[in-house]
Amino acid sequence: MEMGKIGGTVLGGCNRQALTDLDKEGRDLFINWCKDAGCNVRIDTMGNIFARRNGNDNSLPPICMGSHLDTQPTGGKFDGVYGVLAGLEVINSLNDHSITTKHPVEVIVWTNEEGARFSPAMQGSGVYVGAFKQETIYQVQDKSGKAFGDELKRIGYLGETPCSPTAIKAFFELHIEQGPILEKNQQSLGIVKGVQGMYWYDLHITGQPVHAGPTPMNMRLDSMKATAEIIIQIYEIVEKAGEDARVTFGDINASPGVRNTVPKTITLAIDIRHPNQTVLDKMEEDMLAVIDSVCERNKVSHKLDIEWRVAPVIFAKECVSAIEKSISKLGYRSRNMVSGAGHDSVYISQVAPTAMIFIPCEKGISHNEKENIKEEDAFLGSNVLLHSVLQIDIA
Amino acid sequence: MEMGKIGGTVLGGCNRQALTDLDKEGRDLFINWCKDAGCNVRIDTMGNIFARRNGNDNSLPPICMGSHLDTQPTGGKFDGVYGVLAGLEVINSLNDHSITTKHPVEVIVWTNEEGARFSPAMQGSGVYVGAFKQETIYQVQDKSGKAFGDELKRIGYLGETPCSPTAIKAFFELHIEQGPILEKNQQSLGIVKGVQGMYWYDLHITGQPVHAGPTPMNMRLDSMKATAEIIIQIYEIVEKAGEDARVTFGDINASPGVRNTVPKTITLAIDIRHPNQTVLDKMEEDMLAVIDSVCERNKVSHKLDIEWRVAPVIFAKECVSAIEKSISKLGYRSRNMVSGAGHDSVYISQVAPTAMIFIPCEKGISHNEKENIKEEDAFLGSNVLLHSVLQIDIA
Repeated sequence: MEMGKIGGTVLGGCNRQALTDLDKEGRDLFINWCKDAGCNVRIDTMGNIFARRNGNDNSLPPICMGSHLDTQPTGGKFDGVYGVLAGLEVINSLNDHSITTKHPVEVIVWTNEEGARFSPAMQGSGVYVGAFKQETIYQVQDKSGKAFGDELKRIGYLGETPCSPTAIKAFFELHIEQGPILEKNQQSLGIVKGVQGMYWYDLHITGQPVHAGPTPMNMRLDSMKATAEIIIQIYEIVEKAGEDARVTFGDINASPGVRNTVPKTITLAIDIRHPNQTVLDKMEEDMLAVIDSVCERNKVSHKLDIEWRVAPVIFAKECVSAIEKSISKLGYRSRNMVSGAGHDSVYISQVAPTAMIFIPCEKGISHNEKENIKEEDAFLGSNVLLHSVLQIDIA
Repeated sequence: MEMGKIGGTVLGGCNRQALTDLDKEGRDLFINWCKDAGCNVRIDTMGNIFARRNGNDNSLPPICMGSHLDTQPTGGKFDGVYGVLAGLEVINSLNDHSITTKHPVEVIVWTNEEGARFSPAMQGSGVYVGAFKQETIYQVQDKSGKAFGDELKRIGYLGETPCSPTAIKAFFELHIEQGPILEKNQQSLGIVKGVQGMYWYDLHITGQPVHAGPTPMNMRLDSMKATAEIIIQIYEIVEKAGEDARVTFGDINASPGVRNTVPKTITLAIDIRHPNQTVLDKMEEDMLAVIDSVCERNKVSHKLDIEWRVAPVIFAKECVSAIEKSISKLGYRSRNMVSGAGHDSVYISQVAPTAMIFIPCEKGISHNEKENIKEEDAFLGSNVLLHSVLQIDIA
């Protein structure tokens, strides 16, 4: 709640976007807490923060926990932040119980997970694993023309540690579900075995802009008609692909966008997801066929830009197993899940054994000022995180 | 072509929006031509221009012709302008052949027909017939905050003649079709017997903004899905309403419009038209039923704002008959038509016997810099206008 005050909004949410003054304030507060807990803190050249509690054998790779502290412009207090602060709570609990682990334990804050101010998302973890070049990300500008690199330096978080993979024993990311499944099933914990693959497109459908009155319907090259038909048919494809399949049309624009003119071009954002690569690729294939046939029938042209492709992720067996054992020992109600959203863990899983733990969020609402969690669930999740770290430590 | 140079665009179109410096330049040129043709010119308090050629009995009401000189931002050279300049050509032809009509003959330029800079459209003719209050229109602002009244005064066209209906024997508006029907049927003239009624709406569909990944499809309140279904079903309603029915979805917006969030609200502009009031009202009734049932099924809410309603217009028999007789005498290929677009004649028909004449425009394209007509058709239309005026004069 104290972290949530930094960038806190009137509606109870949080606006603490990456590399703003507020982000600096949140980072400073977190680092103070880590130092109070006896951690050593290092910052890398992407502003990622590593807070380390030493173990018995500091030559061993650390067991890591973490997520991100930045939020969406009208985001909530828990997305990302909960996973970071739960990691700190684990360290405080180890202190409280005077437990010394074999491995060092670290809490990590990844820079700019949301991608709200600087696009794309997950830049800190992405550069860490080599998915993006650091120099490229430094040059990314926000809407006002300010560069990532300049802003990172300005807020004092351009660290000296190189941003590249080092040995990690395991990485656990505890996160709110951002969906309604756990709440609906009255379960407090999700054992996240993987992450949906995700394909992003911009579809441009172009017809002929003619006056709304004089042109008979059957003489129009109507981009809106084709678009509506394509949307309906893609929903059908996704329905056939089963309950793990998703499609979202998050944005749509008409050009020229004049009330009494048939739009020349409709631009539609398409986001399809599935945890199984084969099924996801089949969904794409079917989608392309639908777009072709609908456009041909309506005599309109189209251009499909691929904006982003993330392959499905299957998390590390040893990490998933550690979570399962902890939950089993603690006796909490849980279910196996696949994450529908992208997370830093998607990148980290490329260089280290990784898994995620979910807790419910109210009505599944996230990326929204109304985002909320129960104190009880926050406790259960942190406890599972602690026990998972301990499981890995003795494995 | 000389008028088209004022505001002429690189692509061959015209950008001469109402009450701009360019509009003033176009008006000045037109008035000079009218004075060269021996007309008396008066300006009313809405900037409408009346160029009068006296008849034998100047106590009789004038036979009027006209349209507008303002254009869309990326408009063509002919929409409106053709009808005004053809009126002047009629006067020049009467001069050339030393014909004195019984009634005075007037060419009228109505201010701001397009409504591109100051909304809504048809303000000059609308105030003339009492559809709008002049004081209200004076206060309408363009996007930069400049008021209609101030701009009218600034360009020197705030005239002294009161803007209110005076006796008019007949009003003829010659115009490009702005649709493809005449060209497709290789006919040079349309006898316009009426104007489609037109209902404009903004439909707001509101669901729940959730994250694109985690939320299963069957747990979403998806505004985009409901919108696509509504669009498809309204196309079906309009198809059933016959070949004179139209629907256009000219603009659509998603809010928040984020790629990986199901849109909370979709706003859709709907424009339905039909020349028969009963059919148009039935289309609206069916549309409302579809919106209700689709929204209920998708568990989303909706709000339908009525933006504008124009009842169908049936033009005056004596004017239509004068056009028919002229075309018949001249032996031109023609067809009966209904105008799909709104025109100043819609308003003028409320206070004076009115009809319209159409000539083809290339590929039906209008409100577009590519707008084009054949010189031959421009001549035939002007000749029909001349003979229609003469028919009315002796009727």
